[in-house]
Amino acid sequence: MLKVPATDILSPPFNHQQNAVNGAHSYSIAILPLNGKLAAFINPVVVEAYMRGFYIGRFQPYHDGHHYMVEEIADQVDELVLGIGSAGDSHTTRNPFTAGERVLMVSNSVAEFDLQTYVVPIEDLERNSVWVSHVQSMSPPFDVAFSTNPLVIRLFE
Amino acid sequence: MLKVPATDILSPPFNHQQNAVNGAHSYSIAILPLNGKLAAFINPVVVEAYMRGFYIGRFQPYHDGHHYMVEEIADQVDELVLGIGSAGDSHTTRNPFTAGERVLMVSNSVAEFDLQTYVVPIEDLERNSVWVSHVQSMSPPFDVAFSTNPLVIRLFE
Amino acid sequence: MLKVPATDILSPPFNHQQNAVNGAHSYSIAILPLNGKLAAFINPVVVEAYMRGFYIGRFQPYHDGHHYMVEEIADQVDELVLGIGSAGDSHTTRNPFTAGERVLMVSNSVAEFDLQTYVVPIEDLERNSVWVSHVQSMSPPFDVAFSTNPLVIRLFE
Amino acid sequence: MLKVPATDILSPPFNHQQNAVNGAHSYSIAILPLNGKLAAFINPVVVEAYMRGFYIGRFQPYHDGHHYMVEEIADQVDELVLGIGSAGDSHTTRNPFTAGERVLMVSNSVAEFDLQTYVVPIEDLERNSVWVSHVQSMSPPFDVAFSTNPLVIRLFE
Amino acid sequence: MLKVPATDILSPPFNHQQNAVNGAHSYSIAILPLNGKLAAFINPVVVEAYMRGFYIGRFQPYHDGHHYMVEEIADQVDELVLGIGSAGDSHTTRNPFTAGERVLMVSNSVAEFDLQTYVVPIEDLERNSVWVSHVQSMSPPFDVAFSTNPLVIRLFE
Amino acid sequence: MLKVPATDILSPPFNHQQNAVNGAHSYSIAILPLNGKLAAFINPVVVEAYMRGFYIGRFQPYHDGHHYMVEEIADQVDELVLGIGSAGDSHTTRNPFTAGERVLMVSNSVAEFDLQTYVVPIEDLERNSVWVSHVQSMSPPFDVAFSTNPLVIRLFE
Repeated sequence: MLKVPATDILSPPFNHQQNAVNGAHSYSIAILPLNGKLAAFINPVVVEAYMRGFYIGRFQPYHDGHHYMVEEIADQVDELVLGIGSAGDSHTTRNPFTAGERVLMVSNSVAEFDLQTYVVPIEDLERNSVWVSHVQSMSPPFDVAFSTNPLVIRLFE
Repeated sequence: MLKVPATDILSPPFNHQQNAVNGAHSYSIAILPLNGKLAAFINPVVVEAYMRGFYIGRFQPYHDGHHYMVEEIADQVDELVLGIGSAGDSHTTRNPFTAGERVLMVSNSVAEFDLQTYVVPIEDLERNSVWVSHVQSMSPPFDVAFSTNPLVIRLFE
Repeated sequence: MLKVPATDILSPPFNHQQNAVNGAHSYSIAILPLNGKLAAFINPVVVEAYMRGFYIGRFQPYHDGHHYMVEEIADQVDELVLGIGSAGDSHTTRNPFTAGERVLMVSNSVAEFDLQTYVVPIEDLERNSVWVSHVQSMSPPFDVAFSTNPLVIRLFE
Repeated sequence: MLKVPATDILSPPFNHQQNAVNGAHSYSIAILPLNGKLAAFINPVVVEAYMRGFYIGRFQPYHDGHHYMVEEIADQVDELVLGIGSAGDSHTTRNPFTAGERVLMVSNSVAEFDLQTYVVPIEDLERNSVWVSHVQSMSPPFDVAFSTNPLVIRLFE
Repeated sequence: MLKVPATDILSPPFNHQQNAVNGAHSYSIAILPLNGKLAAFINPVVVEAYMRGFYIGRFQPYHDGHHYMVEEIADQVDELVLGIGSAGDSHTTRNPFTAGERVLMVSNSVAEFDLQTYVVPIEDLERNSVWVSHVQSMSPPFDVAFSTNPLVIRLFE
Repeated sequence: MLKVPATDILSPPFNHQQNAVNGAHSYSIAILPLNGKLAAFINPVVVEAYMRGFYIGRFQPYHDGHHYMVEEIADQVDELVLGIGSAGDSHTTRNPFTAGERVLMVSNSVAEFDLQTYVVPIEDLERNSVWVSHVQSMSPPFDVAFSTNPLVIRLFE
């Protein structure tokens, strides 16, 4: 089991069963320092188990930077959920593609990695306080989340 | 049972600071059997500390059954948040009163108890998976939730 | 100024019963000039009766300026509803606190005044034309509204 | 034009300027008893003036009953706004037509009356307490409202 | 150019029946170059038939530029639907008038043209990808759309 | 049946470019009778080309009936988009699973077929008239849609 300093411990919002009435069960979670701006929230009790990661972006469009990041993440997880953020936005300069077009683009691009992937559109909810719950409801359960967006990182913390 | 100073209260499933980076802290969750249909979700590490409870209902109108329940809850908590559910509904046979009228009704009715109370309207979100987060964002942080509504109980679990 | 029994209070633009069939009753509305930027909309027929005021702000956070204003308002009304505006916004630099955190903050801060208070979160509706009705439905009925926000003042006019 | 006693006063929710801060101005409104189930809310100070009425229905489809009612209303007002209720509903057995198809249907059907008409789709808002404000914002200002729907009547009261 | 009886009008991108499973039917679409910035999307198989146009704007307020454009359009169509865009916006500097006030303003202004008109408020949907369907559902079916707004033109394309 | 090169595929009711102003292009649409209750909307000009299908259901849960249908569809298309309908519903008897849980369930179940699949959650929009556009924006472009839900079939028609 990976050992991390206790001071890096983050909280359990990623465990899908976090609200289960489970009496005796206790667990802890830690942050895994990654390179660059990539933030990772990880549950240490699961680091040697089969792991599913979550990586969210708008992917307007999916580019080399995204691809490099997925490549890095692929080394650390067994499965990866790619969340297509702001799924409802399209037809503008900043958000040219529909969610469906981005699903196609991302799915084909990540096919080269040895990784089971899920590509799910995530519509905006305009309510930061419930955003993490919303993401969790749209994605298969995941053990670790990756993002370079400061607001996303703040919300997951 | 572990005794903790009031300043250390961090009750994960209900507390807004549940995602705070909290170092060594680990916790567990248990159900506290209450009388009748009243369900309670409580963090055992805090049961002897200063406690704030949360009780949600539609209160259309606030009646003796509600009053008896608040009386019971008052024995167990120091402060109580009363959530006015389905706050946006009014002018129908099932939901005759506006949220504001219910705030007035409930506030005056619970004034007789020796209890600091907060009465907050909670609009419906039509999305069960984010409902708990929504409630937590609208209410002062609480340590224990009370409800007799089966769906509310399932969502908090 | 006309003196009316407290039981006859019907302040048309703010009162929930404004549409009630009320026979002979006729009324008028006036602006009460207050100091500084504080705007007041008041029903002159009720000014000597028991009065409930309404003061709305985002309170991100509640500060000395708000406190001074509540102190002033406290001299003029018997009860005060404090509306927590933009209740759904949180986790940003401009709106750091959730509605629940602000309810706690404001409730504790105004406790020092000799005034019955109600602190209610008001979610945005993104529709100016129905905003006043929305506020009225979430708040206990009030006789006079206070605000320093130009748009709020325009909508209440 | 029918003359009614001022003692039947209803309230000012139809006057678009109802919230204007107007000091000296006072006005009154009355109910106009109509035949059958048709409810009318009317402002007596305007009964001899040029009047614009408002009649709302789902018109799924527009039928003889509606046509007879418009014929009656046409005798009492100079202009008529026809609100297409539940404008967002279509493609179901209960609501087969889109709002646009109903605009066409109603416009052509009422063309035979000597009456300036406006046909406006009104989307549902799922919030009874703000529904009247919503309707007022979508319709040209009107002096009298007609409906046979009990909920609509209760909301306008 | 193909001549078809008016009863056969089926203009695919705008017609409500565009998705009909209709086997043998085939049609084509063309752009009709108009003067200035005015864009037109037109179904060539219907150009000699009875035609209904659609022209959308915010009309905050309706001004001479709009009036000149309607005058031009009036030469090319038999009926015209005027869509009041951003119908839910009002009470701001950029959008001072409610949809209802704009319905009144536009209806009276276009009355001078020899043209059957329909004036319909169109609420925003904040979702570009479904906006055209939304407009089509709120408007009587139309054969040609006119707009000077670049986003509207892109969405209709 | 017309044979067209794969690069010319333009299936009007489902294709994102359906509204393109394309002058000379003409196409036709046909229904492909399938066995049982399965409805198919298909563009005959593409039937011999590489095809992507779309199959929508709530999948609460994914069961043998669904599996048998996917097996049949797999014989007719090269790629398949599986839309998880009512994606926002969960935690009820009728809709027990979140969209994310259903994504996992469906993805694993269809892995056995020789078929490139995409599994996308589709949130409800409560507006039948724009539902097809909404689905199209969330899904990779598709040539043929499959459903056993009568309302879905009516909307796609």
